[in-house]
Amino acid sequence: MDEIKIFSPATVANVACGFDVLGFCLDNIGDEMVIRKVDTKGISITKIEGFDLPFQTELNVAGVSAQAMYDTIQPDFGFEIEIYKNIKPGSGIGSSAASAVGSVFGMNELLKKPFTTTELIQFAIKGESLANNCEVADNVAAALFGGFTLVKSLSPLEILKIPVPNELFVTVIHPQIEIKTSDSRAILPKEVSLNNAITQWANFGSLIHSLHTENYDLMRTSLHDVIIEPYRSNLIPHYNQVKNVTLKAGALGTGISGSGPSIFSLCQGVETANNVRDVIHQVYSKTGIEFDIYVSKINLKGMKVLNTN
Amino acid sequence: MDEIKIFSPATVANVACGFDVLGFCLDNIGDEMVIRKVDTKGISITKIEGFDLPFQTELNVAGVSAQAMYDTIQPDFGFEIEIYKNIKPGSGIGSSAASAVGSVFGMNELLKKPFTTTELIQFAIKGESLANNCEVADNVAAALFGGFTLVKSLSPLEILKIPVPNELFVTVIHPQIEIKTSDSRAILPKEVSLNNAITQWANFGSLIHSLHTENYDLMRTSLHDVIIEPYRSNLIPHYNQVKNVTLKAGALGTGISGSGPSIFSLCQGVETANNVRDVIHQVYSKTGIEFDIYVSKINLKGMKVLNTN
Repeated sequence: MDEIKIFSPATVANVACGFDVLGFCLDNIGDEMVIRKVDTKGISITKIEGFDLPFQTELNVAGVSAQAMYDTIQPDFGFEIEIYKNIKPGSGIGSSAASAVGSVFGMNELLKKPFTTTELIQFAIKGESLANNCEVADNVAAALFGGFTLVKSLSPLEILKIPVPNELFVTVIHPQIEIKTSDSRAILPKEVSLNNAITQWANFGSLIHSLHTENYDLMRTSLHDVIIEPYRSNLIPHYNQVKNVTLKAGALGTGISGSGPSIFSLCQGVETANNVRDVIHQVYSKTGIEFDIYVSKINLKGMKVLNTN
Repeated sequence: MDEIKIFSPATVANVACGFDVLGFCLDNIGDEMVIRKVDTKGISITKIEGFDLPFQTELNVAGVSAQAMYDTIQPDFGFEIEIYKNIKPGSGIGSSAASAVGSVFGMNELLKKPFTTTELIQFAIKGESLANNCEVADNVAAALFGGFTLVKSLSPLEILKIPVPNELFVTVIHPQIEIKTSDSRAILPKEVSLNNAITQWANFGSLIHSLHTENYDLMRTSLHDVIIEPYRSNLIPHYNQVKNVTLKAGALGTGISGSGPSIFSLCQGVETANNVRDVIHQVYSKTGIEFDIYVSKINLKGMKVLNTN
């Protein structure tokens, strides 16, 4: 096998009360990439479609993570990468993570899996750090493992797979405005009140319990973010209105996807997820802002091999 | 049935990363109380053994919670309460909670259970607030439900029962010094760093996951408190030394029980729990401070009826 085509899924990070540590994986939204073993040493990006991104390895998220892995194994051959980008950069649904993960996942398959999934994360977060100015793993872990993932710690790297209740669907709106992750980090406070922190970990612990016990009522009362949302929601046009109508339409919880501008609503059952899509559509179609809406199951598998040669 | 004798267990609250929301119940340490239906209306405390506590209903934790329940039901008879106190007040293992819970649990049994366990908590926290100057439910919930309990919210009252891994034991040392809960609250900061808060909820979510999955290794890396311990540990003599020797002896985690001065170590298996007891004994027997040490299984049932008449 000298060539592999893979699907690298979009992901939702933070998930309301799980800021910086929780993520989950989407089913039908993501990038495709081709990774090819070639005689020429090094990493080269040979094709990018969908969005205007740099071809230089050291300026491209997929290139940086690929190079980090390449430098570790130092093989006597090289890799070419083709990127078919569907997830818009800066959308808040793990665009950079999909790129960062795709290259190293594909290379690892071609090399007959010398690295575990957790080890791949170490390379992927090098790519992520190019986009985010800091090493975060919530999106890359969700893309690589699928399902819900809890990044317990980055050093040492500890990733936990959290069970996914069967009826869980998500509706995501991506308003076509750009929020830079670095900007949405900059507006966060360095200190938070102890009372709010206690509320947040009570909610987060309860959310983890609710996922283990398939307790949808508890998800509803746990999916609240008292720490980050008050700051970042101001960057997203019509955020409060979207939140209100989605909760009225039956969403279990609505929050900012990653650092925004995308907004996610977790729902019990596809019917509710579709109703939630409809009410968001009603709100956003009046705003003059272009947008996409997705309805998805939680993707339990994460990365997918599409074909090999 | 006009008289009931009950066992009201000691409890550990906070449990490292679960400050203010998590608690668990001890097996063989606790108070005994007799509750008796009598013709004379009202609540009267007729006997207190073990420690010098007030007989006036409104100054006694067990009296305040009993009165709160009594005022709600307004029966045409009354209750007498006898308290056989084994848990020293101010020990940090839920002394006031055992009193607050015991009276209302016993009354509820005599009345043929008009209230659910969760409803009893509402009365018990009135008693707790006499001791703590604020309404907290982490100890009373653990005493009433047994096992591990997560107080998700006080208003509305939401208590979650978290699974208890089978091999879990706890060693508790109670140094015979007094720390007032109100004092140990006063030294806490009003604000905490966002980074520490993130670490705390990553640990707390991981701890909940580890209890569901019986993952003892994960308990070991999750039982850390980066928020409260740095402040409160200064109030407890030889805290760091106890922590060091217990972790070396194999404890999964060591932390402050409630607001101290008691220190708990969660352990996998009774053998490790006994070893941990021995190393604590070595440290504390040199200090000149009197102390008790307990080794206990996690009490899965909570309150116990000893006999009825």
